[in-house]
Amino acid sequence: MRKIKITGYGVYLPDNIYEVDGQRRYRANKNDTQLSMATAACRKALENGKIDIENIDCIVSTSAVGIQPIPCTAALIHEQIAIGTDIPALDINTTCTSFITALDIMSYLVDSGKYNNVLIVASEIASHGLNKKQKETFDLFADGAAAIVISKSDSNDQGVIASMQRTWSEGVHATEIRGGLTGFDPTFFSEETRDEYLFDMNGMSLLRLCSKKLPLMFDDFFKENNLSMDDVDLLIPHQASRALPLIMKKLNVPKGKYVDMVKDYGNMVSVSVPHLLCKLLEDKTINKGDKILLCGTAAGLTSNILLMQI
Amino acid sequence: MRKIKITGYGVYLPDNIYEVDGQRRYRANKNDTQLSMATAACRKALENGKIDIENIDCIVSTSAVGIQPIPCTAALIHEQIAIGTDIPALDINTTCTSFITALDIMSYLVDSGKYNNVLIVASEIASHGLNKKQKETFDLFADGAAAIVISKSDSNDQGVIASMQRTWSEGVHATEIRGGLTGFDPTFFSEETRDEYLFDMNGMSLLRLCSKKLPLMFDDFFKENNLSMDDVDLLIPHQASRALPLIMKKLNVPKGKYVDMVKDYGNMVSVSVPHLLCKLLEDKTINKGDKILLCGTAAGLTSNILLMQI
Repeated sequence: MRKIKITGYGVYLPDNIYEVDGQRRYRANKNDTQLSMATAACRKALENGKIDIENIDCIVSTSAVGIQPIPCTAALIHEQIAIGTDIPALDINTTCTSFITALDIMSYLVDSGKYNNVLIVASEIASHGLNKKQKETFDLFADGAAAIVISKSDSNDQGVIASMQRTWSEGVHATEIRGGLTGFDPTFFSEETRDEYLFDMNGMSLLRLCSKKLPLMFDDFFKENNLSMDDVDLLIPHQASRALPLIMKKLNVPKGKYVDMVKDYGNMVSVSVPHLLCKLLEDKTINKGDKILLCGTAAGLTSNILLMQI
Repeated sequence: MRKIKITGYGVYLPDNIYEVDGQRRYRANKNDTQLSMATAACRKALENGKIDIENIDCIVSTSAVGIQPIPCTAALIHEQIAIGTDIPALDINTTCTSFITALDIMSYLVDSGKYNNVLIVASEIASHGLNKKQKETFDLFADGAAAIVISKSDSNDQGVIASMQRTWSEGVHATEIRGGLTGFDPTFFSEETRDEYLFDMNGMSLLRLCSKKLPLMFDDFFKENNLSMDDVDLLIPHQASRALPLIMKKLNVPKGKYVDMVKDYGNMVSVSVPHLLCKLLEDKTINKGDKILLCGTAAGLTSNILLMQI
């Protein structure tokens, strides 16, 4: 057990709502930027936890897509909430599951005593990169930001119990934005190349790969850690798509044991998991002592599982 | 002491050399991409360490600028060297010091037993993003890649002794590539906006901020860890610029105690530190038992210090 606890949390959702087929997607307004949303979520998390920024020991940004190629996104957030301090800022990225990866990694640093309080923030403005020609993805994604503060816990029953990450690059081209950095740089932009700079997902190919790989990974996760699904109170999966119930069925997760709010919030990229985590803490669906399993798949194809007693 | 050791290392330098004012800069050929260089360095590190990819537990990419907005760079590298495996892949980013940050963070995970062997790779193709109008930076940067494998050590005299990172966002706009992601997206590219997509550095402003912040940080680092400069055999600083001796003087590091090869290699962004580390291991300038201090400043402005007994 890596002894950590959640001591603050905050969410920012834009108030512009796109409705389609009875589904709701929060989408950035003109005034919302990836940075403004990240900043708002961080401020709420600090306020919620009654924590001064001076007491934060590290700021970690987990957005899948950054704000600028240089510097890292956490440094830009630092300017908004921590200018004048020495707080280290860094980015951790596994696309949609970046938040789980960062929580996992930072739990080692908090448990070891390196840092006492770490602010982890995800912010995504997916709507800017969507391709209207791909209706499935255009209608699926949403914008927003969520932040939590994790802190050292003294309790033996609070923290990260086990975690696992796997990457299967057979699926690396099934979810991409190819253009914008060194692989296909911005200077090649034209109306003809526009699609290279937009989000491109092959949902069917991903679903096939997930169906093949995920059941084995979940089995291994439980076996290697001497655990079973009975040790989990609630699964909080990345809200990847409307196929979520299908995947949960493949994993033998009964209805009611996992959170599916794709209808209400869509896929918020790296924000989905921390957003739901904050929401469920706020409405007391999850409470101290509960064992929650954060999981999800991400471009890569990467999959993360993290079991935490909150 | 976080007990880790370096069990493999490899470098890739392009064979195209740009010479200016008696300085040499390796610059990518037409056939070199950020991905091909990363792949070459990884293969050399695995070969050097006689390690099969199947024995690597995690692949970490530390490039300042990625290859694609989605997925993360490590997943693209995974496709080249680890396809068909389950090895987790992730990116860690603090721009120029990303390699030090990743080494620091992953040392906790290796020391704890989470991973036995971690491949850390930095690859940069800075030359693509340089602005000819900024002669100082155009002549300074170079391309290449370097990779190392870190593994669990059994020795009590081998590993990371201490580390520190600080970010001072007063300097966040002194080193930037603003365009290409969500802040200023590729669709705004035109001849008029071209400069937004190119590297922009204010060397003088950085030098002033570093001169003010670094001496205090080094003092704190040594004091907090009950160490002094006498505990260091060799400093391997990021090769930020030709002002390196000036900074070293401010830090009271005597000539001969730090590596300055800016003349020979320039600033290779996140590759500078691992490249020198590999080079000094290869030519036996540093040897088992030596205490080396990796340090550097990065866009952010971020500064890292890491003392390691190899």
